Amino acid sequence: MGEKIEQLSTQLGQLSDLGGALSVMGWDQEVMMPDGGAQPRARQLSTLARIRHEMATSEDLGDLIEAAAQETEGAGYDSDEASLLRAAKYDYEQDMKLPVDFVAKFTQVTSEAQHIWAKARANNDFKSFEPTLEKIFEMARQQADFLGYTDHPYDALIGQYERGMTTAEVARIFNAHKPDLIELIAAIGEVEDRVSDDILHREYDIDKQRAFGIEVIEKLGFDFTRGRQDISTHPFCTSFSRNDVRITTRFYKDYLNPSLFGMMHEAGHGMYEQGVAEALDGTPLGSGTSLGVHESQSRMWENVVGRSKGFWSWAYPKLQANFPGVLDDTNVDAFYKAINTVKRQFIRVEADELTYNLHIMLRFELECDLLTGAVKVSELPQVWNDRFEQFFGIRPPTDTLGVLQDVHWSAGLIGYFPTYALGNLLSMQYYNTAVAANPSLPSEIASGKFDTLLSWLQTNIHQHGRKYTSPELTKRVTGTQIDPAPYVAYLQEKFTDVYGLG
Amino acid sequence: MGEKIEQLSTQLGQLSDLGGALSVMGWDQEVMMPDGGAQPRARQLSTLARIRHEMATSEDLGDLIEAAAQETEGAGYDSDEASLLRAAKYDYEQDMKLPVDFVAKFTQVTSEAQHIWAKARANNDFKSFEPTLEKIFEMARQQADFLGYTDHPYDALIGQYERGMTTAEVARIFNAHKPDLIELIAAIGEVEDRVSDDILHREYDIDKQRAFGIEVIEKLGFDFTRGRQDISTHPFCTSFSRNDVRITTRFYKDYLNPSLFGMMHEAGHGMYEQGVAEALDGTPLGSGTSLGVHESQSRMWENVVGRSKGFWSWAYPKLQANFPGVLDDTNVDAFYKAINTVKRQFIRVEADELTYNLHIMLRFELECDLLTGAVKVSELPQVWNDRFEQFFGIRPPTDTLGVLQDVHWSAGLIGYFPTYALGNLLSMQYYNTAVAANPSLPSEIASGKFDTLLSWLQTNIHQHGRKYTSPELTKRVTGTQIDPAPYVAYLQEKFTDVYGLG
Repeated sequence: MGEKIEQLSTQLGQLSDLGGALSVMGWDQEVMMPDGGAQPRARQLSTLARIRHEMATSEDLGDLIEAAAQETEGAGYDSDEASLLRAAKYDYEQDMKLPVDFVAKFTQVTSEAQHIWAKARANNDFKSFEPTLEKIFEMARQQADFLGYTDHPYDALIGQYERGMTTAEVARIFNAHKPDLIELIAAIGEVEDRVSDDILHREYDIDKQRAFGIEVIEKLGFDFTRGRQDISTHPFCTSFSRNDVRITTRFYKDYLNPSLFGMMHEAGHGMYEQGVAEALDGTPLGSGTSLGVHESQSRMWENVVGRSKGFWSWAYPKLQANFPGVLDDTNVDAFYKAINTVKRQFIRVEADELTYNLHIMLRFELECDLLTGAVKVSELPQVWNDRFEQFFGIRPPTDTLGVLQDVHWSAGLIGYFPTYALGNLLSMQYYNTAVAANPSLPSEIASGKFDTLLSWLQTNIHQHGRKYTSPELTKRVTGTQIDPAPYVAYLQEKFTDVYGLG
Repeated sequence: MGEKIEQLSTQLGQLSDLGGALSVMGWDQEVMMPDGGAQPRARQLSTLARIRHEMATSEDLGDLIEAAAQETEGAGYDSDEASLLRAAKYDYEQDMKLPVDFVAKFTQVTSEAQHIWAKARANNDFKSFEPTLEKIFEMARQQADFLGYTDHPYDALIGQYERGMTTAEVARIFNAHKPDLIELIAAIGEVEDRVSDDILHREYDIDKQRAFGIEVIEKLGFDFTRGRQDISTHPFCTSFSRNDVRITTRFYKDYLNPSLFGMMHEAGHGMYEQGVAEALDGTPLGSGTSLGVHESQSRMWENVVGRSKGFWSWAYPKLQANFPGVLDDTNVDAFYKAINTVKRQFIRVEADELTYNLHIMLRFELECDLLTGAVKVSELPQVWNDRFEQFFGIRPPTDTLGVLQDVHWSAGLIGYFPTYALGNLLSMQYYNTAVAANPSLPSEIASGKFDTLLSWLQTNIHQHGRKYTSPELTKRVTGTQIDPAPYVAYLQEKFTDVYGLG
């Protein structure tokens, strides 16, 4: 390694360490911290974030990146050095584009906004949130201007979460499968009483839910010597290193889904982080490459594997034994249908596989329109409900069940939603590629063997960390670009079967 | 507040925040972290510590302290501003005295030493630890030279943990009560079969131990809205703010003491941290003033309160009810004697109230002799065993039970041990002062009422944080200096009663 790239590595390693420290403190805040700790923790996080930002935007670092770039000229695109340099250059340029004062102000506005939003949601009172949301979209427009774009301001925003993705591309992808979804949902709507999820709402002892979930995700491949599983209000995954990955879940004693599928979902994120190459650990490359690719992993384990017939032919007897008496009067077929119930309902986080992307499309279209001014914030509740009705055929009775349901906008996360839907699409493209390479995969899953799939994901996706952008990675893995067709085909086949359609 | 002192406050607040971050990560490391996290965590801690050290020794900070000193000239000694400045000046000078290279090297040597020591202890193999220990004492001498001293190099070392304390003063204090301890221990040795702790070694369900311990420390006054209680291999207390204080304990299913008295001990540390004035939070004054004063709090709640007859007249029926059947054949008197059993044995951390300080004196004398060269590291096992026999009348059969038992020296903590014994002495001086001011205290304790004592401690000790040094604080509280006489009188009265001595 050359002298400059080595110096750069050290400096980026320290940035990465500070990021790790921030994540440890964030995890503790959500999972362990007593109430009293909130105010001092906010102070400590802000001090660390400030120090991190100063290091990340120092002139020194900029010079070092230039010098290291000259030194490594000619290194292969796939080499660790060239990849590190690409990421360092990109991160530095992104950080430099946003003025410190703007970042501080945006942090403050969105921090205050979250309390205002939470109260507005609780009281079904959009008006009290409206001025704050106006301010946030105004600042999001400024943010887009600072970051720069050629076609649409939204390009700059989505690029923060899914580097290389554009508004036009998202629109193309979404429009290419929206009619199919609407049609299939409508068809199921006609026969919706054929399937019920009642058995998932029986009484499931929480300790036993936990034991079963842990048994399952350990079997999937989540490594507990390099990770933990805990409880939090909002489930999440965070990582301080490939060797220390934390996932969380929540439990309801009368609803099996949140813990069971939530744990598989977060374990999917967790296994991605655990699978990054050791050599990239503690560098800017040592983490998943984008939110969309991350979501492809969580949704693959949660849905493609975890809601499949094969998986439950193996897992159902174990589930039944784990909850003695609870499932005596039913069977694996009924259970499989129950976990694949399609419901037209208002809340995104409760959405099934089929309706999920439609919830996202609604948000994507509104975000674009709000950003350009085609829709005004004051019109939002009305427009939300109108479009929701067009998409789903039902109308939210309150804003709490409508425009106020998600935390993202109050947190300033504009451009984030599409990554959820892109992740669903990618999950099927990656899975199909894995099956093409290993035709026995589905039968392995049906016998509780998951290591071939995990190992394929590690080799083709996980180990690369942030070496490749999301489009680069998908091209490498599948030979093509992101494409909704395989996902639609999967949904059509699956739900035609579940609902016994024509 | 003047401009300079305000700037200084901000800068010190950031230092304090970094310290808080380091503590969060340290706590997580001991309590939550999966095995795989060790190596990345060490890296993250080292990066943060380096950044903290750079901030703590920056020329900027030095200039600011000088400017703020001029600005606050004339501020009362007890004022927050003058106290902040004293602490800032002291910390800065101490930090500046140790060259960065020395600190890095000492950290590295002692970090490696801990593995070597742990292995040597496990294998009863002092020889394998000897070269490392020689290196550590050599570096401790250098450390003392860097820090500076007038009489004895050990002054510089103990000053790191107990500011204002000297070797001569420790020697005077220790010599003033050593003969009394030896005499009383010998007298009890003649009738040692009068008391037994067998009933503490029955089978105590761990969940019930935990529930009982938590009930007790909550009653004592540990505030769970501003703290947590968890499990770790080695019990400790750490604090990220007065409003986020974490304590830990360990459990054995066949031994009640470690969890029961360990929890009261750590809660004593924890309540000290929780009692620091809100105005000092997030500043260099926002924590306990010295290890000795800290230990006075933990030992007061653990021993003076927690091993008293009065306390158990209240607590014993609850304990009995908490462990149905386990204590049916015994009574509160037998239990009180059991928890006050005096044992001549080899291990400091298992020592009772009476023998504890003697274990410390042995270490103090050896540390001084090793530092001056009067004893060589190679002679240590022999000298340890000889002196142990003089003190206790029994001889360690192995080095594992002798010179290798403690972690401190391998961690580079020379001068730390005396603070344990000083804490014992102070606990009684403070307690007597509290009783003089509130004569009903003992009877309150006997009826399970602890708030008068806690509130007295908060007013007289806790709230001041690091405003006063340990000697200053003791002078303010008791009107005198540290003095072993009250502690000796307490031990004589207590153990004469427990053992029915003449």
